[in-house]
Amino acid sequence: MKTRQYGEKGQTGMAYAQLMDVTGRINDFLNAANILNWDSRTMMPRAGAETRGQQVATLSVAARDLLCSDETRRALESAEAEISGLPEGDVRHTMAQHVREAIEYHERIPTSVLRRKEELAGVAHDLWADARAASDFSIFAPALEKMIEINREMAAAIGIGSHPYESLLHKLEPGTRIEDLDVLFGRLRDGMLPLVRAIGEAEQPRSDFLYRHYPAKDQLAFALKMAKRIGFDTDRGRYDTTVHPFEVSFTRNDVRITTRVSENYMPMCLFGALHEAGHAMYEQGVDPAYTRTPLATDLIGLYAVGGVSYGAHESQSRLWENQVGRSREFWANHFGEARDAFGDQLADVSEDEFFRAINRSMPSLIRVEADELTYDFHIMLRTDIERQMTDGSLAVKDLPEAWNAKVKEYLCIDVTDDANGVLQDVHWSGGQVGFCNYTIGNVMAAQLFDTARAENPAIQQGLDKADYKPLQNWLNEKVCQHGRRYSRDELLINATGRALDPEPYLTYLTGKYSEVYGL
Amino acid sequence: MKTRQYGEKGQTGMAYAQLMDVTGRINDFLNAANILNWDSRTMMPRAGAETRGQQVATLSVAARDLLCSDETRRALESAEAEISGLPEGDVRHTMAQHVREAIEYHERIPTSVLRRKEELAGVAHDLWADARAASDFSIFAPALEKMIEINREMAAAIGIGSHPYESLLHKLEPGTRIEDLDVLFGRLRDGMLPLVRAIGEAEQPRSDFLYRHYPAKDQLAFALKMAKRIGFDTDRGRYDTTVHPFEVSFTRNDVRITTRVSENYMPMCLFGALHEAGHAMYEQGVDPAYTRTPLATDLIGLYAVGGVSYGAHESQSRLWENQVGRSREFWANHFGEARDAFGDQLADVSEDEFFRAINRSMPSLIRVEADELTYDFHIMLRTDIERQMTDGSLAVKDLPEAWNAKVKEYLCIDVTDDANGVLQDVHWSGGQVGFCNYTIGNVMAAQLFDTARAENPAIQQGLDKADYKPLQNWLNEKVCQHGRRYSRDELLINATGRALDPEPYLTYLTGKYSEVYGL
Repeated sequence: MKTRQYGEKGQTGMAYAQLMDVTGRINDFLNAANILNWDSRTMMPRAGAETRGQQVATLSVAARDLLCSDETRRALESAEAEISGLPEGDVRHTMAQHVREAIEYHERIPTSVLRRKEELAGVAHDLWADARAASDFSIFAPALEKMIEINREMAAAIGIGSHPYESLLHKLEPGTRIEDLDVLFGRLRDGMLPLVRAIGEAEQPRSDFLYRHYPAKDQLAFALKMAKRIGFDTDRGRYDTTVHPFEVSFTRNDVRITTRVSENYMPMCLFGALHEAGHAMYEQGVDPAYTRTPLATDLIGLYAVGGVSYGAHESQSRLWENQVGRSREFWANHFGEARDAFGDQLADVSEDEFFRAINRSMPSLIRVEADELTYDFHIMLRTDIERQMTDGSLAVKDLPEAWNAKVKEYLCIDVTDDANGVLQDVHWSGGQVGFCNYTIGNVMAAQLFDTARAENPAIQQGLDKADYKPLQNWLNEKVCQHGRRYSRDELLINATGRALDPEPYLTYLTGKYSEVYGL
Repeated sequence: MKTRQYGEKGQTGMAYAQLMDVTGRINDFLNAANILNWDSRTMMPRAGAETRGQQVATLSVAARDLLCSDETRRALESAEAEISGLPEGDVRHTMAQHVREAIEYHERIPTSVLRRKEELAGVAHDLWADARAASDFSIFAPALEKMIEINREMAAAIGIGSHPYESLLHKLEPGTRIEDLDVLFGRLRDGMLPLVRAIGEAEQPRSDFLYRHYPAKDQLAFALKMAKRIGFDTDRGRYDTTVHPFEVSFTRNDVRITTRVSENYMPMCLFGALHEAGHAMYEQGVDPAYTRTPLATDLIGLYAVGGVSYGAHESQSRLWENQVGRSREFWANHFGEARDAFGDQLADVSEDEFFRAINRSMPSLIRVEADELTYDFHIMLRTDIERQMTDGSLAVKDLPEAWNAKVKEYLCIDVTDDANGVLQDVHWSGGQVGFCNYTIGNVMAAQLFDTARAENPAIQQGLDKADYKPLQNWLNEKVCQHGRRYSRDELLINATGRALDPEPYLTYLTGKYSEVYGL
């Protein structure tokens, strides 16, 4: 089936069609890069890595060059003239605007800075790996200092917002303002710290059975079954295993997820699959008319994706993983199936014990192993530090000390060494900042889930009887179908009547942990 | 491990390095297209096809545009000046020459002709499918007429050789001359027809056991085992299943093969695997220094490949599949393993019976199902017809009649209908001609195999004891390592002292079929 695409002849004039043709080719390059990346993480023989990096780089540069080419500029100008008479709010204005903004964004960043960043990233990654192996931050510090310097140059060139960190965030969470983050994170800390402390003094539920031996094959089958159950469409996607789980979209019709499996810790594969399925369902829900257009292409981040921001994307994955997948109702409906799949391992486990075990919370040093409640503290401390690093108010040499103090403040535990502290994440070695999208996603998830159930009683009724279609339909209508047409905040205000609001998330966390821990 | 590449700084000057950089990027685009094509035939959910064609087309056009760009031209001119003092025969001259020839080739073909061909190919494919379904050539004939007209325009534009067919063959088998093909095919016909006729009167060996039920899983395991045995390196490749078997190389370090499996006909998967492994070993043997260079990129055919022509490639696949894989020695060594894998199915079968069954010959209507001996007649009749279509000496309306007469002449059987006759292959609907490479490959395989064993007794001694390394080493030295450095004929003359010579192939066929059929 060939779907209608904006910009085909007949719907608009030739100039707009020409713009859609060139942006379609940009999407092709970026989609191809996604496929190569997926392949290198799932299918490629190890020796293939020799040339794969160069191939992906060539595609990414080709996309950027085509975007900033005279051909695209001319097509844009002609298209803008041609569509100027269309009513405000017409999607074609948005398409053209995305292209214009992206060209202006890329033009601001000198190629020489990009090249220096890329060269440094290679060196810095190796130094970071050495430093982590030796658990010695000082090995990595000089490279990190240089990376921050380059990031500051980039921020100055981008020149968006009132703080250099806002310029850097623009690629991931456009429109994010530091002062809003301050308010949001402040309220989250105030609401969540008492929970963390109360749990610290409460008795932990039983969880021994999660660590029994669960054969990988059975786990994968069960996780895929549950992912399909909530709405992941395998006719338009794939599910594979890999060391680092991820979701990647090529088009709404080809969205692939992966998970990792531990045979001695069952939640990893299962909730990983629900999480990635949530990401996948966002992409699978994008309006088919947006395929290959700027509304399914991040022209600023140079990534073929239909979701509008990393935070918005995380809202969908977290909603399905946590709000739905770790709920009482979900396991009231599916614990029997879990027992069918894992009869021996769950023989002595009740539904209630299972529910409590998968919602257990315990502060830990490592972000990627953190539970739902403590995860946000890992994010908040990184956001504090990134922002201070970027504006120069925190010197690189003082980073381990600052990190350890934050962990103590937020998670009430002592950092044992740099490897399990400030060196645990790879991101900064590549100059990547912007961990905040995870917490933005959590907040947004609760807000959407709250509104959905309040607006339409059929949604909760569906969840009560394992019918996830009403919720999926609501999310498709309010979020997924729009692709990149609206900003994250526009999307949220259209859907819930207000911008990011931490209250539903705090209410949800308080309710759940009070129940699990009898607080 | 990072391998040395021609064109890195330090080895030659900046201009040559610049040429290698730009041709490296062309290779990246074409490699990416290969990965996308592999993926679409093995991994992609069906719905993904909607955008995949556009993605591959964008990459292919990007490769061509970059090749013919001012950037490449300037790099070529500067590089040619820079290397002009290097001795004749230096590989860098060959690199530059490949680029120049490819630019000149593509420049000759007007974009408008390419576009018309592409548009027609879409329509013609559907009409061919309709015609085949109805077994009615007249449905396809008007589209084929137009396609031939476009091919004649292309041939005139390319202007290579003395016959338009030679221009069209240039992409697949550069340097092929009609008069040489006439001599070659004439001698093959004279030598092979008596064999076909004698076999027609002889008693067929037993082959019932090949059609027993062989579970797909066991077949794949055994086929992969045999492919690795002859030298396919799975550390630098993959083996998957698909409906249409193929080999595809991304680089010498990532070469992927596929086969299809019939649970009721065992040779398909096994010999398919040996055949594709032969192709793969050609690519895996290319000099690592040629990675991403014009010596591992077909800049004329716009395909990332290290083998020098389709015929040369076929020589490697046919050598391993037929000369080695269907030999007495091979099954003297491996029949025990086949019995281990398929105990029930081969319980009542002797090694001699197995050897005869897999070498059975019987004329049939369908090329892709033909045996080793009759396959070449399918090729020769297509070559006769393609050539006559191209020069206009055979009218499209007379094609079924000409086809049926040739089948009668070469294979001594009557064509039942168009679907099993002139309409069986998809190629012409896309304007593709050049079936001759299969027969060229067979001839070349026998010639190489003959010389190898005559030159080095260790090769036959190796084959006698299932040690395939001496043969692989010889082929690597004489053929594979050179990539696209030498033409097919140069390669053959360097290796065997002469150009294509049908005698070793005829001797081989006569010997084998005399033995199998007791002629």
